[in-house]
Amino acid sequence: MILIGERINAGFKDIARAIREHDPAPIIKWAKKQAECGADYLDLNIGAASKDPGDMAWLVEVVQGAVPTSISIDSNKPEILKAGLKALDGRPAIVNSTTADDEKLEAIIPLAVEYNAGLIGVAMDERGSPQDVERRIELGAKIFMAATEAGLPPERIFLDPILMPIRFMQDQATKVLEVIRQYTLLSDPPPHISVGLSNICSKTKERSLITRTFIVMAMAAGLDAAICDVTDEALLDAIATAELILNKEIYSDGYLQAFRLRRGTRSGGRS
Amino acid sequence: MILIGERINAGFKDIARAIREHDPAPIIKWAKKQAECGADYLDLNIGAASKDPGDMAWLVEVVQGAVPTSISIDSNKPEILKAGLKALDGRPAIVNSTTADDEKLEAIIPLAVEYNAGLIGVAMDERGSPQDVERRIELGAKIFMAATEAGLPPERIFLDPILMPIRFMQDQATKVLEVIRQYTLLSDPPPHISVGLSNICSKTKERSLITRTFIVMAMAAGLDAAICDVTDEALLDAIATAELILNKEIYSDGYLQAFRLRRGTRSGGRS
Repeated sequence: MILIGERINAGFKDIARAIREHDPAPIIKWAKKQAECGADYLDLNIGAASKDPGDMAWLVEVVQGAVPTSISIDSNKPEILKAGLKALDGRPAIVNSTTADDEKLEAIIPLAVEYNAGLIGVAMDERGSPQDVERRIELGAKIFMAATEAGLPPERIFLDPILMPIRFMQDQATKVLEVIRQYTLLSDPPPHISVGLSNICSKTKERSLITRTFIVMAMAAGLDAAICDVTDEALLDAIATAELILNKEIYSDGYLQAFRLRRGTRSGGRS
Repeated sequence: MILIGERINAGFKDIARAIREHDPAPIIKWAKKQAECGADYLDLNIGAASKDPGDMAWLVEVVQGAVPTSISIDSNKPEILKAGLKALDGRPAIVNSTTADDEKLEAIIPLAVEYNAGLIGVAMDERGSPQDVERRIELGAKIFMAATEAGLPPERIFLDPILMPIRFMQDQATKVLEVIRQYTLLSDPPPHISVGLSNICSKTKERSLITRTFIVMAMAAGLDAAICDVTDEALLDAIATAELILNKEIYSDGYLQAFRLRRGTRSGGRS
């Protein structure tokens, strides 16, 4: 699994304040913490806290100064994505994200190509987020085709079927599982398939339980990436166990510890 | 989910002793405990403790005196199955189990028909337990056809693809998931699909975590029954959450409590 740490996002108050005041302390704290927990990428999102592309560049620089972890630059604005990409020190990165709108595809795919980055494509367009399986497949396939034609290999493409809150749209999770299965058939090797995992537990009381139950099902369907709370130990234990059951992690009595240690070391969180 | 409590089995020392000495106390204790936890059926197995069909009849009578819960009569010997079925007081029951051997099918299917019981068919035959997907499907389909021809409707047939210990046969779990998916296509409505869940965690240190991670994946693939440890609260919480995600349980903030309460009441564990 490719785990993308969700926490450096202006949707969280401490991060919004840090961005507005250019205070690096909370950013560094969450960069180190998520790296220690084994994040493969750190997602960076200036969200509603700023419209200034320079703030994304600042955020990238702060994180790069704190940890060696790869970075996911998260915005729906091409100019903010570009500012983040330009600030990179050469480490691997993901552009998060494009939709299936022609205008977005034309602006954002070339950025991923130019900066040698991965690209997350979310299954929505100017008409919004579809709630059926077929349209999600259609939009995902459109993004996949456009990215492939622009020269991105499948291993740099991440398709996101868009997870909805279980509390408000309870019929959507099974549809997303079916879309994941279908996305694995787009090519051989298939593209990566990713979700914004915390969406599913929005406004629920059993956040961690719902989240980890869904990801296990989704991994069995073909999911291999997630933007998620990497500090949730029960979630990481569920992911390690799912990899064991899916025969991607070798059994040992201490497989949970081995999984954590390897992740922490790999992402630079521990030396 | 149809949950079949595994605990009244001579594989457990307290139960083996109780059967040998005709001591009803441990049987009654586990019957009540599993009913309170929400078992739909209680599996009864005299195993290596006795070869006397009369002991199965005694076990059925003890359990029937203690709880109103339905019963799964578990043996590979037709004469022991028959003794258990004859002792039933009219409550619903499952015959657990037949293999795909012609001899077993001919002896055991008529018992399920005669006593109006469900039937578990395990995907093995005189050559043993297959380790590939195709043979499991072939054997499951053979049992399904034979049971259907004898007059059992799909809702009284439970197919078991045979789960193997993850510790020793790590490639088997994904195969079982694929077999479950295929079994759902055998008919419309499909037969029930069941596993002996605790097999997967045999000799592992993280028994509950491995067990509940697997069942969640299996439920997403189509599993709707399991012989399992119904007293494992984390397992039941995972099952409740999987039903929520699969849109079979309505969301409320207290869905875990609602799930437990409804199960305990339904199986006669609470009044």
